[in-house]
Amino acid sequence: MTAMERTGPWRELLLPAMKRIAEDVDASFDALLPMANDPRDRLIEAMRYAAMGGGKRLRPLLVMATATLFGADRAMAIRVGTALEAIHVYSLIHDDLPCMDDDALRHGKPTVHVAFDEATAVLAGDALHDFAFEVLSDPNLSGDPFVRIELVRTLALASGMNGMAGGQMMDMAAETASFDLPTVTRLQQLKTGALLSAAVEMGAIIGRIPYEGRSHLRGYARDIGLAFQIADDLLDAEGDEEAAGKALRKDENAGKETFLSLLGPERAREQAQMLVEQAVGFLASYGEEADLLRALAWFIVERDR
Amino acid sequence: MTAMERTGPWRELLLPAMKRIAEDVDASFDALLPMANDPRDRLIEAMRYAAMGGGKRLRPLLVMATATLFGADRAMAIRVGTALEAIHVYSLIHDDLPCMDDDALRHGKPTVHVAFDEATAVLAGDALHDFAFEVLSDPNLSGDPFVRIELVRTLALASGMNGMAGGQMMDMAAETASFDLPTVTRLQQLKTGALLSAAVEMGAIIGRIPYEGRSHLRGYARDIGLAFQIADDLLDAEGDEEAAGKALRKDENAGKETFLSLLGPERAREQAQMLVEQAVGFLASYGEEADLLRALAWFIVERDR
Repeated sequence: MTAMERTGPWRELLLPAMKRIAEDVDASFDALLPMANDPRDRLIEAMRYAAMGGGKRLRPLLVMATATLFGADRAMAIRVGTALEAIHVYSLIHDDLPCMDDDALRHGKPTVHVAFDEATAVLAGDALHDFAFEVLSDPNLSGDPFVRIELVRTLALASGMNGMAGGQMMDMAAETASFDLPTVTRLQQLKTGALLSAAVEMGAIIGRIPYEGRSHLRGYARDIGLAFQIADDLLDAEGDEEAAGKALRKDENAGKETFLSLLGPERAREQAQMLVEQAVGFLASYGEEADLLRALAWFIVERDR
Repeated sequence: MTAMERTGPWRELLLPAMKRIAEDVDASFDALLPMANDPRDRLIEAMRYAAMGGGKRLRPLLVMATATLFGADRAMAIRVGTALEAIHVYSLIHDDLPCMDDDALRHGKPTVHVAFDEATAVLAGDALHDFAFEVLSDPNLSGDPFVRIELVRTLALASGMNGMAGGQMMDMAAETASFDLPTVTRLQQLKTGALLSAAVEMGAIIGRIPYEGRSHLRGYARDIGLAFQIADDLLDAEGDEEAAGKALRKDENAGKETFLSLLGPERAREQAQMLVEQAVGFLASYGEEADLLRALAWFIVERDR
């Protein structure tokens, strides 16, 4: 039961796991978002359009990899991952709106306000936002109300003004202000880090690990979150729009400071590698049962999209 | 301990209660939405601008009046009412957006996207949406996780695709479809009825009344919800824009079917009166401790805004 090394065959472990979780999350959205056969169907269609068939599903994978680390039920982890993904998807729908980033392409297909209309996009985002809390509060998810309420609280805090939405606001302010490295770090910890950390926390909650017992997992999550954002900056600067399935180089064009603009490409790459090694270090007390979390960390800086 | 009659001095009971709950809800938002002293402050300002100092606070009053019917703690009812009001406020911010109803005035002041900007309005709505679940999941609200998760579940279901957001989608469809009375009834039960019913349910949850013991309260809530909407249609047709503090006669201009267009003013007024009497009938087993709920029902058809 020894842990995998970075030089090991971690891709052979990770890629099938990513494929499988993508299928499971799609099946979960499909089952939990049935058509209503009434005038609400346009809304439900838009929710399904946005939620299904796209994205790397990193957040559900993090939930599942953490939950199964503690022997928790995979089916429950999938549903919790689906709830968390619904929050991520809602935030993308709203971010893509004309009044926000005004993006026409997401995961290689037209964004919701383009494929439907703006009002439907606002509502589909709002309804997916509730959907997440509907799934987490469902008595069928767990018979233990404490587990459900802890999941709800973790997600609400990660998503709101002290998490993702707060980070989004800082990001808008970055267009006119010139942020330094600590402020960009704080911005990214809120904007993308909060949900990635929530994924790990929620996996640990399903695994029945008490709050005090999760500090090493919090360290892992914080470090991969920052590494993820630095890698994103690099992909954004060097990537291909068609392969990415979305518009690139928007931060640069908007004159926003990023890890890349502040550190330069070489130091940014070093910093991301250092963070990933540090993240894996937080898992030192685990054997091969944490290999998926290790592989995920390495993937974050080696991915090409 | 006999119940108040409609001919009694119910305004003397209701008006001070409305004034007091409005003060309490404002104080609650003020305490729960402190400024962050960082670049998120524009978001928090927009949330406070939208949430404080306006509205009749009918939903928090319904929570409080139901909770205190069962001797529950008023402070807890205020916090739960504040969470519910946050959902109502977020929905108003998003409804007012240019891509939705495009309203410039709400509660007599510029709407959030006018006073701030569209992107901030989208985000302020999203962050108030999370805020509601943050408040309800807070361990300080109640030591009993079952009470907290039941509150979360009730609110998420009332707010999402099978509640308010679903009703909003039906309302958009009403611009191009010609709905009959059962469909308009269903639309309104979702769009405004779901949150009003949730207010009563949440009051009963705080009052520790099990689900099966709440059916008469559900009947009361359903009837005042429909009466509220019919009265709203009448006020919309006959009211004064300045007194209302918002644009009126939009449904008529958009060619939407409403209770008023389908029933005509005389039958609509009769229907609202009948529903309110029926609502009060559901409270027959209570004495004067339910007078505030009775007064609220009567107010709904006698209000002028």
